[in-house]
Amino acid sequence: MSDIIEKLESLIKQRKGASPDSSYVASLFTKGRKKIAQKLGEEGTETVIAALAGDRAELVSEGADLLFHLLILLEDCDVSYADILSELERREGVSGIAEKAARKD
Amino acid sequence: MSDIIEKLESLIKQRKGASPDSSYVASLFTKGRKKIAQKLGEEGTETVIAALAGDRAELVSEGADLLFHLLILLEDCDVSYADILSELERREGVSGIAEKAARKD
Amino acid sequence: MSDIIEKLESLIKQRKGASPDSSYVASLFTKGRKKIAQKLGEEGTETVIAALAGDRAELVSEGADLLFHLLILLEDCDVSYADILSELERREGVSGIAEKAARKD
Amino acid sequence: MSDIIEKLESLIKQRKGASPDSSYVASLFTKGRKKIAQKLGEEGTETVIAALAGDRAELVSEGADLLFHLLILLEDCDVSYADILSELERREGVSGIAEKAARKD
Repeated sequence: MSDIIEKLESLIKQRKGASPDSSYVASLFTKGRKKIAQKLGEEGTETVIAALAGDRAELVSEGADLLFHLLILLEDCDVSYADILSELERREGVSGIAEKAARKD
Repeated sequence: MSDIIEKLESLIKQRKGASPDSSYVASLFTKGRKKIAQKLGEEGTETVIAALAGDRAELVSEGADLLFHLLILLEDCDVSYADILSELERREGVSGIAEKAARKD
Repeated sequence: MSDIIEKLESLIKQRKGASPDSSYVASLFTKGRKKIAQKLGEEGTETVIAALAGDRAELVSEGADLLFHLLILLEDCDVSYADILSELERREGVSGIAEKAARKD
Repeated sequence: MSDIIEKLESLIKQRKGASPDSSYVASLFTKGRKKIAQKLGEEGTETVIAALAGDRAELVSEGADLLFHLLILLEDCDVSYADILSELERREGVSGIAEKAARKD
């Protein structure tokens, strides 16, 4: 996994039990899963809007926000980013096998 | 960056110009950015729903879908996943510096 | 309330207990609230996309989809469209009072 | 159409050219369509969350927010709520005809 994702995951974990005044992430955990999920939904919409506007800088910023809030939501549900990567790996393996089988036909 | 993300990015790039019949990703690129963005929005909503249902397996699956469609949307806008990671790295650096400055106070 | 909204509300109510094969609305109720909510989220995203594309015909179509799926979701939660209108009426009354008070200043 | 929707549409129209400091709606119009669309997307997500939480009072509140922001977005695109109702009427007519035809079989 990339260094920055690992760093962020560990940072998010630390802030899970921290005082809501100490950081944005800590305040989100205090507000609870509904609020965290709402923020993820908002960042999804903003990523859509940035892409449709064809604004690359805004897309980088909103994509980063989306990924960051995904990490927070995953942590709140005790799912790790590695779980997501494993799922993608598993699917790619399956479609890779399908592709090889197709080539033999 | 993680191996699977790199593999998926290269796979998505290959399918960009391919026949829409050849794969799901190729068909999305043919339909255009509005359709790709719409799919990202949908996966965002489904990730929200899975998290609120407290269904870890579903969250892993929807989170993987969200990340996968983010990669497709980024490619369509000529933005790489590395750009997103750099942005997160930059922000973390900034907040890291802010944190160190705060400690000195 | 407008005639068509009343007509649709009564139609949606009828289909609530009907066989999932009999209509789209009946099949949505059978799939359950998560699926209905997911559809509302999708229509929200599509309304956003139509508006940003500046496509009036598409916006009319997506806005109609959004309102229709809102009626289905409300029915699933035993909330009526009249409840929504009352809430808007209540708020407008409050802000109307605030406006009058402000004028006296 | 319902009185409150007409009242809100006329109020929104008035605020379209007003100073951004004068009201929330005026400030949204000043920020532009991307911001208005973003707010609609957010209200869509919040409506989804309220429905899944089974919180009727919250759903009434979020549904009202969604409808209100839909009116603002429509106004920004020169589409009226009556256009949406006509589209629903047209569809209902079509499906009514289909239903009658099916009954004859």
